[in-house]
Amino acid sequence: MTHNIYEIGLEPNPANFLPLTPVSFIERTAAIYPDRLAVVHGTVRRTWAETWARCRRFASALEARGIGKGDTVSIIASNIPEMFEAHFGVPMTGAVLNTINTRLDAEAIAFILTHAEAKVVLVDPEFSEVAERAIHIAGLRGCIVVDIEDASYDGGHRVGSLTYDELLASGREDYAWELPANEWEAVSLNYTSGTTGNPKGVVYHHRGAYLNALSNIVTWGMPQHPTYLWTLPMFHCNGWCFPWTIAATAGVAVCLRAVRADAIFDLIRAEKVSHFCGASVVLAMLVHAPDELKSGLHAGIKVMTGGAPPPAAVIAKMEALGFDVTHVYGLTETYGPSVSCAWQEKWDGLSGDERARLKARQGVQSIASGGLMIARPGSLEPVPSDGETIGEIFMRGNNVMKGYLKNPSATDESFQGGWFASGDLGVMHPDGYIEIKDRSKDIIISGGENISSIEVEDVLYKHPEVMEAAVVARPDEKWGETPCAFVRLREGSAATEKDLIGFCQQNMARFKAPKTIIFGDLPKTSTGKVQKFMLRQRARDLETAS
Amino acid sequence: MTHNIYEIGLEPNPANFLPLTPVSFIERTAAIYPDRLAVVHGTVRRTWAETWARCRRFASALEARGIGKGDTVSIIASNIPEMFEAHFGVPMTGAVLNTINTRLDAEAIAFILTHAEAKVVLVDPEFSEVAERAIHIAGLRGCIVVDIEDASYDGGHRVGSLTYDELLASGREDYAWELPANEWEAVSLNYTSGTTGNPKGVVYHHRGAYLNALSNIVTWGMPQHPTYLWTLPMFHCNGWCFPWTIAATAGVAVCLRAVRADAIFDLIRAEKVSHFCGASVVLAMLVHAPDELKSGLHAGIKVMTGGAPPPAAVIAKMEALGFDVTHVYGLTETYGPSVSCAWQEKWDGLSGDERARLKARQGVQSIASGGLMIARPGSLEPVPSDGETIGEIFMRGNNVMKGYLKNPSATDESFQGGWFASGDLGVMHPDGYIEIKDRSKDIIISGGENISSIEVEDVLYKHPEVMEAAVVARPDEKWGETPCAFVRLREGSAATEKDLIGFCQQNMARFKAPKTIIFGDLPKTSTGKVQKFMLRQRARDLETAS
Repeated sequence: MTHNIYEIGLEPNPANFLPLTPVSFIERTAAIYPDRLAVVHGTVRRTWAETWARCRRFASALEARGIGKGDTVSIIASNIPEMFEAHFGVPMTGAVLNTINTRLDAEAIAFILTHAEAKVVLVDPEFSEVAERAIHIAGLRGCIVVDIEDASYDGGHRVGSLTYDELLASGREDYAWELPANEWEAVSLNYTSGTTGNPKGVVYHHRGAYLNALSNIVTWGMPQHPTYLWTLPMFHCNGWCFPWTIAATAGVAVCLRAVRADAIFDLIRAEKVSHFCGASVVLAMLVHAPDELKSGLHAGIKVMTGGAPPPAAVIAKMEALGFDVTHVYGLTETYGPSVSCAWQEKWDGLSGDERARLKARQGVQSIASGGLMIARPGSLEPVPSDGETIGEIFMRGNNVMKGYLKNPSATDESFQGGWFASGDLGVMHPDGYIEIKDRSKDIIISGGENISSIEVEDVLYKHPEVMEAAVVARPDEKWGETPCAFVRLREGSAATEKDLIGFCQQNMARFKAPKTIIFGDLPKTSTGKVQKFMLRQRARDLETAS
Repeated sequence: MTHNIYEIGLEPNPANFLPLTPVSFIERTAAIYPDRLAVVHGTVRRTWAETWARCRRFASALEARGIGKGDTVSIIASNIPEMFEAHFGVPMTGAVLNTINTRLDAEAIAFILTHAEAKVVLVDPEFSEVAERAIHIAGLRGCIVVDIEDASYDGGHRVGSLTYDELLASGREDYAWELPANEWEAVSLNYTSGTTGNPKGVVYHHRGAYLNALSNIVTWGMPQHPTYLWTLPMFHCNGWCFPWTIAATAGVAVCLRAVRADAIFDLIRAEKVSHFCGASVVLAMLVHAPDELKSGLHAGIKVMTGGAPPPAAVIAKMEALGFDVTHVYGLTETYGPSVSCAWQEKWDGLSGDERARLKARQGVQSIASGGLMIARPGSLEPVPSDGETIGEIFMRGNNVMKGYLKNPSATDESFQGGWFASGDLGVMHPDGYIEIKDRSKDIIISGGENISSIEVEDVLYKHPEVMEAAVVARPDEKWGETPCAFVRLREGSAATEKDLIGFCQQNMARFKAPKTIIFGDLPKTSTGKVQKFMLRQRARDLETAS
């Protein structure tokens, strides 16, 4: 035993060791900037003092109803103030916030409520019908159902025993919340959208939420007092931890019920929005919006995009509109963004297209991340940094989930040798930036050659008539598989299958060009990811039919 | 025992729990921005890849010499690249970095080296003589003394067994450093300048250094890639954690051997400095510098000041020069800044003087702080937020020291009921901002009334001829004590004692005005704090002599 003078009489005590929790951000901001605008929702404008008072009332009312450490509080809601408040009020009690994807059907919601053992469910009127059915199917005993009343939605009906405002009225503003006893305690529960099988419940902890919220600030170079528009659903990875980031920076949370181009552009102008996040499908919607919607935008609006790899062409068009796009990558399991395409000054002088191509890469680890590599599964041997050799993306860090709730086998499978296995395939470029090539199940193997579906989609997006594109494998007797593209064209476009295949052949290796093009809308998950399993099924059906 | 589904099968593992350490910042930045400028020192310009390689060489060379966990590596150096590198190279080995105040005498340095049980001492040539004597007095056995060679200092002599460059040459760039086993492990050791008695060794840990470095970014709204000028000594609270902040933001560390106005203005222009920190005495030096030095400054340079309360007049003059001043407050025991005078938009329209007066208040807790209050010692009962009732300043948070090294009684005394007792006296304003009134030993009690020495100094600073002022108690038969001011006038000024006393009487309550003015230079600690114990002695001597 070596003598270590630094380990004697220097133990942690309540003055020098405090559990990290994102709740501390709102407490501090409400104390320092009580009169500053915190939340905007239609005609509702609340300060930080008002919002914090509502959170305290909410938390005390939950506690009075027996809710506390380790209990699940579920919410089915759009990006409305109550959803924002739940990110503070629920963890204050020691309970765990479970935000539910609003586009799920009643059966899927019922599975989640049952699996999470929900003690409380908060319901946005827009989703009262599906929530009512889900609660009925789940048959939860003693579960408290709370109706949110919201002027921005005309419709719905009461399904619970009290309203959110009644709940708040029963609470106390002088509620003295306590830090979690341990920063490893669960703060939230997010079910993966899971394209097959039952969804898995990803558990976040206070420590990770605190650190990833700060990491957002550093990664994005965020100043104090950003005005943040809620284009990204808060039910998705807790809005990439941005409710907590906005509290830490004393910003303004501009709520948004429906993600529509007109509402987004209107709010950007009216509230002088400085920052927003969105899946690439949201960006595509904005660039393809009618020109009259886009007039009068101020310069330098910062956009963070991720969730699905954004086509370089969409990035280029966004930047041409004056937006400053930062591309991030992560999974529900990594609290949202854990990788960011950090900009290099030496790229400043490049052409717009070249800049967009570089920005379309997923990038490098964020501040909160503790490691990122592309390696061979099993051996965990990193692949060469040649931009070509495909391997699996592995991460580690304090922004990796605790694990999947009540699912030890899935948890064990996802952690390998001190790393989290993402299930995504990618390459490592010589400059240390990663680029996703596919989900492991999305790669197309044609004549023994790997074809990245994302690479083919990227070329299709460069065609001026293409609004959306998704490429999957179509079974083929000769080649094993061939690329099959599903494409949505701009309204009124007359582009043909032959046009697009020819365009692809001219813009990439010929064997990678799609052999089939199917026109129409693309099926998507609630987070804007194309449901490729459905497209694969359709491609298989084509084969059978031919 | 209640059933908690979140505590089963969700334990930490190496993929999702990593000890926080500021070393991770430089590793990440060097990987992402290898070719970006990291350190500037005269003609030396090194990138992050080069700096990180030097840190790895340094760490491996230390480890090869048996240095590791719990060992102390001391350094006596100006703000030169080796000092910056030591903030990473030393903690990488598990050893503890002990930066020593360069203005101490040999006896004080010897005390520190002995008390810290230094295993290695790095010596800047400027301090070779005092270091040599200190090492001799300390008589440390087996201590490795390393000479730094630096072209910016002409003189000094070798006192060690090898040079820093020789040490690096013996190290390995492929050194694989390891995270600390526990983020609570010590990262650095800073001795308080202690105006009486032996200095106390304040111990920081990896967790606090990481969090306070990020807190600097959020508090100051720092963007990526700041250009930071080293006007604040790195030996002072590890430069308020800014070596780690600069690494986290991939900024540029502009070194500075001597804090002189000409060198500062030259470097600000030449390197396009965006941020710097300094004690208020540095700011006073800049505002009083000849006008020709100040020409051609770019706009929006951000200055963080603290260490001693800056007179409002100095802040106003700095802002008139175009600098954006943020006032922070903290102690060695709080990793430097733990309180910040957060700006409120509603103050934007105020006059320059009024703005400066508000900025001269110490402010509110930073993001890393977990609590701040003004309370009565003993009972810990908070004083009213009336801006008048004086109490002691208490803090808590992850940026409060582990304790004092090998000094359990001082450690125990400083922690009271879950709080750190700062020993500073202040008031809480109605808006939640604190303002320091004095160190507890600096308050002047005259005729039973408390007089804040800082308040008197603030008035003196408003006099156009006053360059520096410090006020202490002078024993008085009638009043008990009266305020005695020590003043340094602008060069060539003809202001008299009568002028200044009259000025004070017109600008504050008459009884608070100084009864005595002594002209001359003020004795200061290395961190720019006036050594009031010396002035108090001189004031006592006056009494005896009169």
